[in-house]
Amino acid sequence: MPQQPVITLTTDFGLADPYVASMKGVILSVNPQAVIVDVSHAVRPQRIEQGAFLLEASLPHFPVGSIHVAVVDPGVGTRRRAIALRTPSGTFVGPDNGILSAALPDEIRSRAGEASGRVRLPEGSSGVALSDPRYHRQPVSDTFHGRDIFAPAAAHLSLGVPLSDLGEPVDEVVALPPFRARREPDGFRRGRIVHIDVFGNLITDVRGEDLASPRLTVEVSGRRIAGLQRAYASGQGLTALVGSSGFLEIALTGGSAAAELGIDVGEPVVVRS
Amino acid sequence: MPQQPVITLTTDFGLADPYVASMKGVILSVNPQAVIVDVSHAVRPQRIEQGAFLLEASLPHFPVGSIHVAVVDPGVGTRRRAIALRTPSGTFVGPDNGILSAALPDEIRSRAGEASGRVRLPEGSSGVALSDPRYHRQPVSDTFHGRDIFAPAAAHLSLGVPLSDLGEPVDEVVALPPFRARREPDGFRRGRIVHIDVFGNLITDVRGEDLASPRLTVEVSGRRIAGLQRAYASGQGLTALVGSSGFLEIALTGGSAAAELGIDVGEPVVVRS
Amino acid sequence: MPQQPVITLTTDFGLADPYVASMKGVILSVNPQAVIVDVSHAVRPQRIEQGAFLLEASLPHFPVGSIHVAVVDPGVGTRRRAIALRTPSGTFVGPDNGILSAALPDEIRSRAGEASGRVRLPEGSSGVALSDPRYHRQPVSDTFHGRDIFAPAAAHLSLGVPLSDLGEPVDEVVALPPFRARREPDGFRRGRIVHIDVFGNLITDVRGEDLASPRLTVEVSGRRIAGLQRAYASGQGLTALVGSSGFLEIALTGGSAAAELGIDVGEPVVVRS
Repeated sequence: MPQQPVITLTTDFGLADPYVASMKGVILSVNPQAVIVDVSHAVRPQRIEQGAFLLEASLPHFPVGSIHVAVVDPGVGTRRRAIALRTPSGTFVGPDNGILSAALPDEIRSRAGEASGRVRLPEGSSGVALSDPRYHRQPVSDTFHGRDIFAPAAAHLSLGVPLSDLGEPVDEVVALPPFRARREPDGFRRGRIVHIDVFGNLITDVRGEDLASPRLTVEVSGRRIAGLQRAYASGQGLTALVGSSGFLEIALTGGSAAAELGIDVGEPVVVRS
Repeated sequence: MPQQPVITLTTDFGLADPYVASMKGVILSVNPQAVIVDVSHAVRPQRIEQGAFLLEASLPHFPVGSIHVAVVDPGVGTRRRAIALRTPSGTFVGPDNGILSAALPDEIRSRAGEASGRVRLPEGSSGVALSDPRYHRQPVSDTFHGRDIFAPAAAHLSLGVPLSDLGEPVDEVVALPPFRARREPDGFRRGRIVHIDVFGNLITDVRGEDLASPRLTVEVSGRRIAGLQRAYASGQGLTALVGSSGFLEIALTGGSAAAELGIDVGEPVVVRS
Repeated sequence: MPQQPVITLTTDFGLADPYVASMKGVILSVNPQAVIVDVSHAVRPQRIEQGAFLLEASLPHFPVGSIHVAVVDPGVGTRRRAIALRTPSGTFVGPDNGILSAALPDEIRSRAGEASGRVRLPEGSSGVALSDPRYHRQPVSDTFHGRDIFAPAAAHLSLGVPLSDLGEPVDEVVALPPFRARREPDGFRRGRIVHIDVFGNLITDVRGEDLASPRLTVEVSGRRIAGLQRAYASGQGLTALVGSSGFLEIALTGGSAAAELGIDVGEPVVVRS
């Protein structure tokens, strides 16, 4: 028997309710050999961008060929489409609202506009609307497509069902702009906090590879941090470093930068390097 | 090698402590091929009814033949029995305190009285007290039967050990009454909030199939909600709809109904349809 | 194909961020058959001792031959070593800061001093520094060795790569003293609270096997508890009993002892038996 692909799950469902378990039950009912890995179920309710960020951050570490299900879905039961995408980064299943943006390269996503917008799938990628009822759990509810449409789609894909069997082809999908603070005419990078982790580290959308020099200055919430450290323990007080996902982070040695600064996701950050 | 049945776990142990991991370690020591799925470990401490509800809500989505372990067990180490049940809904392992009520059909459970009570197992179902020490982890503690009795029982059952090998037959077990608000003589359904999910949706014990018409009125906490919506996003403000487990829910579009109403599990709900 | 060993994970990473998922993705990329079990990801940030305690408490319940990865790693990216140990208790992977102390017998750990210190590996145990870059995920970050060094080491070990291939041998490692309150000259045991579980039970470092008699007296936070109960439900009010991991616990029947006493980890406990 060939090795089963990994199916990852990213949702805002939490782990207290029966929602994630129901999705896993549906997947295992279709493919009893499925290997399921939770990425995160702690996306804040209906924060599509945060879910997209978490999926993007873990994506490079999964085997090529993994199937990534992401469900942050405020529009469930409305006319928003359910989609699956196959791209060089893997296979992706979820609502067509931007949550699957990690499937797309930055140069495509940068056509999405400021907040989110429709973009054309690039060559080498394909997509379908999950319209074929043979691959739905019946009856399909209007409240839980994670269980009724996305989980069975992922499970059938993991068994080798061709993407094109699941529904009508699509060539445009909703995408978020890339997590990449742009270079301003004055040479600064103006970005923002996109995630706060369990340690209180503030993760920005400024890419490490975009920093011209480690002799930078970071301004956030009225504080100024000079220089780039290599490791969490090598700084003192508020510290700037490039974190494990390749983004500039602000950390507090031995403590929580989020608590120290009292700020939340969305806070602007200016980097001069 | 034949496919292993899924073993699900529902407890009030949380995920911070080593308790759930210890159960999984015991299961994998007996059956290294076991496929284990967490339903929820966030049952509030010792709330048997909430655990029974979460297991019931996820149960229909697992393969027939799955083994469901549920441990909310305030009486551990006292004379309450440890049991396993085999029914048309699956195989169930846990304390005999009502936590396994999902194993039983509603018509049997409605003989349990107002809170909980002993009922006779129906034809086609069988049960045993987990009394045979050969299937216990030794020494059996008085504080953690999840690890010492229920986990090894489930693991042995997953290997094909006959139910009757695990102990003496039982023909009566403790059950909770069904989650089903009764029709009152005045035609109303008087129910209550039985669960609040991560989104703050208030899940009642009023069944969608018991609603005569979508032109209903829901009264909760002094508020009145008219009409039944189809999807979370199709309402405005407080919204009534039939959720993914088939129960009437009260939701707040774009927010948390629980926070808006400031109420908790147990709050009465009146539905006029 | 031979059965894969279990790989357990114990970290302070939480489940909200992509860190644990990234480790699992790396493991499954190296060994797609790996069986991964979470022990706990809720170690308080950078509390090495708490992580060591949780691993020690679950360790006896996993199959011999399991591989235990523990990452509470305030010194990541500094000169602290990354190590793997093979002992009669199993195989262990993590930073060399005491988090892997469960790998070592108490008589060795008691040479570690009051807080932590270097000890010699006993006969029958072996260790390596994870220095061979062929078994690292490249490039190795200075911020996330869980993903870049420990996860791939565990995955390669699970495939049967010899321990000695992963790097240079080590014969001394950092250890914590045993979780075992010592007998004082006056016959008392003076210990402390080392963990508080989800139920608010206060778990001490006083071993049940060290209690001379059940007619003991426990003093904690100005309160005195007489006698040892057998089960949680058999006491009334504050209760002392030997919990499922073999340590003396203080519990509150039907409630939370931690909330009742308002105390935290570290609080001293005196036992007279």
